[in-house]
Amino acid sequence: MNESRRPLAGAAVLRPELTEAVLDAVLDQLAQGGVGRLSMQQVAQHAGVGKSALYRRWPGKLDMVMEAISRLTVPDGEPEDTGDLEDDIHGMLVLLHRESADPRPAMIIPDLLAETRRSPELAEAFTTRVAAPRRAWARIAFDRAVGRGEIRDEPAEIELALDTLGGVPFWWTTVHRGTATEDESLRRLSAFVVRALR
Amino acid sequence: MNESRRPLAGAAVLRPELTEAVLDAVLDQLAQGGVGRLSMQQVAQHAGVGKSALYRRWPGKLDMVMEAISRLTVPDGEPEDTGDLEDDIHGMLVLLHRESADPRPAMIIPDLLAETRRSPELAEAFTTRVAAPRRAWARIAFDRAVGRGEIRDEPAEIELALDTLGGVPFWWTTVHRGTATEDESLRRLSAFVVRALR
Repeated sequence: MNESRRPLAGAAVLRPELTEAVLDAVLDQLAQGGVGRLSMQQVAQHAGVGKSALYRRWPGKLDMVMEAISRLTVPDGEPEDTGDLEDDIHGMLVLLHRESADPRPAMIIPDLLAETRRSPELAEAFTTRVAAPRRAWARIAFDRAVGRGEIRDEPAEIELALDTLGGVPFWWTTVHRGTATEDESLRRLSAFVVRALR
Repeated sequence: MNESRRPLAGAAVLRPELTEAVLDAVLDQLAQGGVGRLSMQQVAQHAGVGKSALYRRWPGKLDMVMEAISRLTVPDGEPEDTGDLEDDIHGMLVLLHRESADPRPAMIIPDLLAETRRSPELAEAFTTRVAAPRRAWARIAFDRAVGRGEIRDEPAEIELALDTLGGVPFWWTTVHRGTATEDESLRRLSAFVVRALR
């Protein structure tokens, strides 16, 4: 909750449903016009709130954008523990794939990455708020597999497996503009990665 | 050569060095402002030629942009045949990596992919002019490995290997903004993919 993370002296309690409405408006605006054209004013208007409602929640555009994106792309909690790496990987891919039933990330992420080439501040925020937490989340399943003796403890290989699980679905979405299928392509990718690690 | 591909009645012979200068200006403009902001006028100005020099070569912006990008991202000829799939893959990755010593593709491609979400015409051109030829080029090495009996003839697995070879370096460049190293990361990726196929 924002109110516990950023308590402001004398501030009213922030209404969570308003926060959600604003974050949803941020995603709509990002999908339509990209991060370069997004403004606090425009988001406030779209969400039907005053700009002050935004500034009570975030110091500026960058933090607001990163919170909106991280909610779509970084799951809560830990990946499900099935006791088998291939099944764990498949579960993670299905979870991320279902979340991306929302069509907006496929519009937003390529644009955001393009902008990170022009803005080191945005690049840094994307890494710390989106890419790194998501990677840490997925790494949990690999650490468990190492603990069980299912795969060797070779950090560089595990990094490469994480790159593959991130990069291949991203490639499917952005370059091929295809659709992953839970039973076929995600299952195939899970098996592919586990074979490569053994 | 453009002049052999698109002969115009009574047209003067097109000077190849002028074509190169224009394509270079296209890449500069794409890297700076993105495909959405690029205009024939601006490219002509940047290359120091008249707009007619552009229209003698391409019917419009889309064809001009795609030719510029495909020159950077689709190698000529066939991948080198070393007789070993892992070495062939490493050779392909090194070749693509060296070409991307040009910093412009890392600026251009994410922006272009973002725009393909908004323009089906651009998406179609990117697929047929850039993505498909590049994939067909890399597939040659896998077909040779199948022919030698080095890997099984499983098209869906080979497609996944091609997605990995495309998606992982793309992920490194765009999401991690890191640098691949020929001896370490590209060698590791080659071995990873071959293990997954066996």
